[in-house]
Amino acid sequence: MAPLIEPAVLKGFRDFLPPAEIIRRGMVGKIEAVFQAFGFVPIDTPAIEYAEILLGKGGGETEKQIYRFTDNGGRDVALRFDLTVPFARFIALHQGEITLPFKRYHIAKVWRGENTQRGRYREFTQCDFDIVGSFSPAADFEILLLIRNTFRSLGAEVSVRINHRGLFNRFLAHIGASDKSVDILRAVDKTAKVGREETTQTLARLAGSAGAEKILEFTAAGSGFEETLDRMIRLSGGPSPESERLETLYRYMTDMGAGAAFALDPSITRGLDYYTGVVFETFLAGLPGIGSVCSGGRYDNLAGLYSKTQIPGVGASIGLDRLVAALESLGKFPPQTAYAHTAIACVKLEHTGRCQALAEKIRAAGVPCEVFLEETGEKNLVKQFILAEKKGIKWLIIPSGDPLNDPLILRDLGARKNLEGLSIEAIGAAVRE
Amino acid sequence: MAPLIEPAVLKGFRDFLPPAEIIRRGMVGKIEAVFQAFGFVPIDTPAIEYAEILLGKGGGETEKQIYRFTDNGGRDVALRFDLTVPFARFIALHQGEITLPFKRYHIAKVWRGENTQRGRYREFTQCDFDIVGSFSPAADFEILLLIRNTFRSLGAEVSVRINHRGLFNRFLAHIGASDKSVDILRAVDKTAKVGREETTQTLARLAGSAGAEKILEFTAAGSGFEETLDRMIRLSGGPSPESERLETLYRYMTDMGAGAAFALDPSITRGLDYYTGVVFETFLAGLPGIGSVCSGGRYDNLAGLYSKTQIPGVGASIGLDRLVAALESLGKFPPQTAYAHTAIACVKLEHTGRCQALAEKIRAAGVPCEVFLEETGEKNLVKQFILAEKKGIKWLIIPSGDPLNDPLILRDLGARKNLEGLSIEAIGAAVRE
Repeated sequence: MAPLIEPAVLKGFRDFLPPAEIIRRGMVGKIEAVFQAFGFVPIDTPAIEYAEILLGKGGGETEKQIYRFTDNGGRDVALRFDLTVPFARFIALHQGEITLPFKRYHIAKVWRGENTQRGRYREFTQCDFDIVGSFSPAADFEILLLIRNTFRSLGAEVSVRINHRGLFNRFLAHIGASDKSVDILRAVDKTAKVGREETTQTLARLAGSAGAEKILEFTAAGSGFEETLDRMIRLSGGPSPESERLETLYRYMTDMGAGAAFALDPSITRGLDYYTGVVFETFLAGLPGIGSVCSGGRYDNLAGLYSKTQIPGVGASIGLDRLVAALESLGKFPPQTAYAHTAIACVKLEHTGRCQALAEKIRAAGVPCEVFLEETGEKNLVKQFILAEKKGIKWLIIPSGDPLNDPLILRDLGARKNLEGLSIEAIGAAVRE
Repeated sequence: MAPLIEPAVLKGFRDFLPPAEIIRRGMVGKIEAVFQAFGFVPIDTPAIEYAEILLGKGGGETEKQIYRFTDNGGRDVALRFDLTVPFARFIALHQGEITLPFKRYHIAKVWRGENTQRGRYREFTQCDFDIVGSFSPAADFEILLLIRNTFRSLGAEVSVRINHRGLFNRFLAHIGASDKSVDILRAVDKTAKVGREETTQTLARLAGSAGAEKILEFTAAGSGFEETLDRMIRLSGGPSPESERLETLYRYMTDMGAGAAFALDPSITRGLDYYTGVVFETFLAGLPGIGSVCSGGRYDNLAGLYSKTQIPGVGASIGLDRLVAALESLGKFPPQTAYAHTAIACVKLEHTGRCQALAEKIRAAGVPCEVFLEETGEKNLVKQFILAEKKGIKWLIIPSGDPLNDPLILRDLGARKNLEGLSIEAIGAAVRE
């Protein structure tokens, strides 16, 4: 006999056993329902693309992390490492087939050869949602509102912290620090990670100590949306189209009575060059320390690498894996090992056909119902009670004779009690949760 | 400016635009609901595994088609080419964490570098469902019933054609052709593809012309389950545990009144060595010509490559892509470009907050409702009618003043009629489908 192969998974990869997968699918279902209620539609793209398309301009970090290889046809290909780049390629390719503004969502796996020592996974699920083909502030607002509602559907309140990249850049121009804007934005973005002291030093190196002081004044936390916006306007040299965009968003929020979920935070910059307008990060009310659970912003040219058509948009992305972990730690998802909480015991194996017919009647009433497959003898029914408990089943139906015509016993496994002589209808009513 | 990158997808790969993805997600939702109603639970496994695990004994065809490469850590890895091998590895790895019998489903993408000239895709979705850890005929029956019910939930009636690999082998032993059993099974399996004449010649070469004649007698179509089974028993030398298994399954079907969906077909052998018990293929009632849309069978040692524990089981697999194409050609899925069939026109952009508040009230009543994002002027509302029609929207709500307090107009885009002066409640009732 050949030696056994060790049944290992690769480092940074995971199996999802039913209790974990039930939670994940449940969350995706709730998220999708909100997206759909807002008129968003789903797309999907290949896991594998030409490496040239995924790498685009070629980024140092991305190039190191991407799963890239030569396929059997000699093509230079790679696994997608996010859903944004494939979406840009998708829009460039299908621009003639879609109606703008286009509201799409995409929930799928992506792969990155990350350093697993920091608890990172190499395969994870992203939920992206974008509105492309619109410059309207109503599109920015809808994405913000969708974030709030999506988390609310998962039982979590959030604070969405908003800024405007363009306003930040206008401020930098006003203080004469435009030439260092990319580095300054990155330094501000890293404050939470490296601490205020190191950020101050970096900023002083980039913009002088007077410049650093002004940047820190601009990015300081404010006491409310309006007060903070007033300060940003003052420090950036007066009202501008960018400050007006923020004012408009604030008015929409106030009109809707949704202001409590949103805050203006001039220290939010998002590291990516890609964003040009509003940017935002999302923090769980009960767990702000884990960092942003949904980030995004407005960009003015999504598909510039692949098409001459300029397509603006605004969107956000939820990392499902980190969110599952966070919501579990908040106790939002009680463990669930099964969808079916009702089963029919196998008293006589020969009754299998009739037990399935009985189960069909119960399922037809919308109650998931499993049929046990192995006879243990009428005196050993306790073995089936144990199996049911292990499987997370709460109600066990025990036929007393012919499953379809003779009275049924309903075992309440939690209370360890039997209800006797029930009709199918009475059982359906009892087990419905 | 850098030259544009061509936004192409790889040969054999596809984007799914919303109309296609809406159908696919809808089908998966219906399939999952049936699986769950039967007490099946979902799992997921990594897309990438050690090549050694996926290739196992090493199969010629598989080895040629698999996407295999060396990762950044120097590991020999590959993309999964089916969901069965990862499931075998999963069971070997997690046998201590699961309760047997274990009923699992797994819906996920797999990748094969197939020859695309035959219209095959290199990325496709499989829906696998198995019961492992049970030898019981009730498990075989449940998989068969689940196939029938799953297709029924998709609006399609099927004929599931069943055979028993063990009974076929017993027959071959009876006629003294055991040593050629694998080749004979493969030759019979290919009959539909190569035609009866070529099969007869192949069988004559393998088992002599008298043998070939007996094999063709055994595998001939019968007029009914019982009559066919009687013939198979006679030709295989009398009753056996294998023929009893088929008899038991037939009794279960009859007891349930489900016989019409199942047929005994001794020519079904399934090409794979892997199966040892019942095997089956599924044909759409309206479209038998496209071949089997769901195949499977019983195996007696799922995880033998990775574990000393013998784990028997029975399961089946649906290829989602081929099924979508088949059901579309049967007209089962009318085109659907959106989930939301109601939208609120953007009469005044400044009302965006109040329009979203209005939409929230409509969504809260379970009606998906989109909010238009761009003002076109009160006199140019027709542009919004056109946008709505392009998006598949049937009802457009037009605020006459303040969206929350003033009367609303409801435009029926199909009938090109306006209903005027409606309350939110009246609109909710009108648009509910």
